[in-house]
Amino acid sequence: MELAQESRRASLALQSATAAHKSAALLRIHDLLAERKDRILEANRQDLEIARKELEAGRITNALYKRLDLSVGDKYASLLQGVLDVDKLDDPTGQVSLARRLDTGLDLYKVSCPVGVLLIIFESRPEVVVQISCLALKSSNAVILKGGKEATHSNQALFEVIQEALASLAPDVQENIPPASVQLVTSRDEIASLLSLDAYIDLVIPRGSKQLVQYVQGATRIPVLGHADGICSVYIDASADVAKALSVVVDSKCTYPAACNSVETLLLHVDVLPMLPKIASALGRNGVQLRMDPQSLASTGTADVATMPSSPADYDTEFLELVLAVKTVRSLEEAIAHVNEHGSHHTDCIVTESSENADMYMRKVDAAGVYWNASTRFADGFRYGFGAEIGVSTNKTHARGPVGLEGLVIYKYRLYGSGSATADYGEGKKAYKHEPIALDSAPHSFRR
Amino acid sequence: MELAQESRRASLALQSATAAHKSAALLRIHDLLAERKDRILEANRQDLEIARKELEAGRITNALYKRLDLSVGDKYASLLQGVLDVDKLDDPTGQVSLARRLDTGLDLYKVSCPVGVLLIIFESRPEVVVQISCLALKSSNAVILKGGKEATHSNQALFEVIQEALASLAPDVQENIPPASVQLVTSRDEIASLLSLDAYIDLVIPRGSKQLVQYVQGATRIPVLGHADGICSVYIDASADVAKALSVVVDSKCTYPAACNSVETLLLHVDVLPMLPKIASALGRNGVQLRMDPQSLASTGTADVATMPSSPADYDTEFLELVLAVKTVRSLEEAIAHVNEHGSHHTDCIVTESSENADMYMRKVDAAGVYWNASTRFADGFRYGFGAEIGVSTNKTHARGPVGLEGLVIYKYRLYGSGSATADYGEGKKAYKHEPIALDSAPHSFRR
Repeated sequence: MELAQESRRASLALQSATAAHKSAALLRIHDLLAERKDRILEANRQDLEIARKELEAGRITNALYKRLDLSVGDKYASLLQGVLDVDKLDDPTGQVSLARRLDTGLDLYKVSCPVGVLLIIFESRPEVVVQISCLALKSSNAVILKGGKEATHSNQALFEVIQEALASLAPDVQENIPPASVQLVTSRDEIASLLSLDAYIDLVIPRGSKQLVQYVQGATRIPVLGHADGICSVYIDASADVAKALSVVVDSKCTYPAACNSVETLLLHVDVLPMLPKIASALGRNGVQLRMDPQSLASTGTADVATMPSSPADYDTEFLELVLAVKTVRSLEEAIAHVNEHGSHHTDCIVTESSENADMYMRKVDAAGVYWNASTRFADGFRYGFGAEIGVSTNKTHARGPVGLEGLVIYKYRLYGSGSATADYGEGKKAYKHEPIALDSAPHSFRR
Repeated sequence: MELAQESRRASLALQSATAAHKSAALLRIHDLLAERKDRILEANRQDLEIARKELEAGRITNALYKRLDLSVGDKYASLLQGVLDVDKLDDPTGQVSLARRLDTGLDLYKVSCPVGVLLIIFESRPEVVVQISCLALKSSNAVILKGGKEATHSNQALFEVIQEALASLAPDVQENIPPASVQLVTSRDEIASLLSLDAYIDLVIPRGSKQLVQYVQGATRIPVLGHADGICSVYIDASADVAKALSVVVDSKCTYPAACNSVETLLLHVDVLPMLPKIASALGRNGVQLRMDPQSLASTGTADVATMPSSPADYDTEFLELVLAVKTVRSLEEAIAHVNEHGSHHTDCIVTESSENADMYMRKVDAAGVYWNASTRFADGFRYGFGAEIGVSTNKTHARGPVGLEGLVIYKYRLYGSGSATADYGEGKKAYKHEPIALDSAPHSFRR
């Protein structure tokens, strides 16, 4: 509660942080993280030691253990480079999206500004502390970080370095970016109480398992940005090109099956069942197991691939492994209806040579990403060219799909009058002009 | 539940409604509402008869009674004109806000599309049935209307005409705008169950009292667009021009005190207390009562105005009548701190001749509208030139301030590939181009 109030105060100070202030903070964080690398990896080793026992006892997976390890390969170098990359991004605040002369001496501007206070709840990956702190600062938001207990030492060490960096900034920078701009919460039972603080926290971003996201979505009135499920689909239309189908299906399923943008359901038009053996063989070579409806199963022929009959639940399941549900449909409409009913509105693809069918599919499928002849795995902020990714959202408001820094800003209306009164307008009085004016015609520069 | 599922199905059909389909529907609604005027006013009279007894028994206010009456002045003509006005607005769907070549043969478009299913909960004003139905259709959303019991007959009559209009459209239009696009719920106890249907309803818009809005905000996981409080403020800075101060304060308080954008708190820099008698007199002439801190009270002099000492609660109160809380501050910073602490983030104004102070105020005050020398009552979709207003939002995500049709759309990403696979990109392989391309370079026209 008090912590959230501090974040709120910090967020008000951040409203006047300039691009130069923010850059100074990010570069200082980068330099100090480089300097303190040994200390951080030492803390990380403490987490890894505990995790190794959990791993040996079979209580955690090897994947989780690996996610925890900051010393693996170039992970620490990437973490440092990530800070510099965020620094180079365009400032998302102070951008004017509307400038309108309501009347002479009465000009309106719609200007992007930070959302306010963010709460990030995350699991295992300690580098999230750095990534999200930098994205929050870049967008002039205060952030409260709540990490998982498996990364307690690593999170704490990274947080302390960020605190030290912010506390060492010049006084004029600190005035606008106080150390309380980034806060860390460690104890496990504080989540529920944080989620009740809708008076102080403006946006919650859960990063982690489906269970975590669903818990957060159900437990708070604060807007939640994220996605619980990633049940993506690829539909092979009657007029599909077999080479494109092969390329899209294999890439969508096999490049990283644990990712939310991997395909989980393959729909095939009945007319293209003859291309199934070829697709099934390619998937088989990649170790994929197929769960098939009777018609597609019968059409698989002698393809060298593990198959089994599908159950209805398979079409509502995010497998997150090398398993793919396969279903035959009789029409484009049936495919669209299936996706809208069973998908999770994340990313869905049609493979077809028909421009008309592609357009109908892309129009009617209600998903954050609708693709034509492209792997579902392109659903990613970096691949979209956003330079950063806050997360992927299946929300229907605010931000949808891969979300870059624009998901951390909202806007305010600035109105510049001259003693202007509404009573002067109306029938028999002055009329509004509502003329577009140059985005930069305000007496104040919004970007600093 | 079944009703909400029907709305969901209608919303999927609406995804392919063209501008021409939507125009046909709106014009048909307009014509039939004109034709059925007598029947609707007859139904309205039934509501008015019941309401008159409530009024006489002192159970409802005269203001509520008047809001219910569709036959007053040119209200019905305005209602009809409103339908034509919505028809003339630009289609908010199919607008491209980003077009980017990720690589040769891999083009990305961010295209606006409807949110999906809207739930509107409103009180007394039956014309909301028509306004919101038209705005929903214009933005290709399905809508569930839940009106108050005091307008049962009027709402039902208006709804029936809209149903009749939709059911009489040509088959190709009906295919994309089925009659279930607009649905009406009448019984009182259905609100709670509707608010639990987050699987089918994408956005709730409560239009009515603060109590209604707060109840809705607390009772649902569905995103809510609206505002509970309108505690707007005007701050008279040390360097204010007295004529501008007078004009802004009187207009902000007196033109329509029951509106959410009316001022409730007047802050005065201690240096401008000498201009208070003049402002107080002008407010007094308009029947305003002032609730004042000791210093401002002492500075009011012989001004002919009703005054009383303020209590702390007055600075957190939306009076919605001719009452104004007045407080002296010692600095711009104190004014900003007061507004951020006690305001409702709706609309706040500074009166000053100092461009620097104006900029600091507008930057640091965290509100949907920050005004310089302009009445808070300009916070209105029509005055902003939006052509329509869904409501005013004090949310920090999705839409803020007066919300036009853009608050009823979100976007989807359309990706046009050529069998494209992510595995072809990365170190030693292809690189992303991320080049801007023309917004209209897609093989499909998004605006139809």
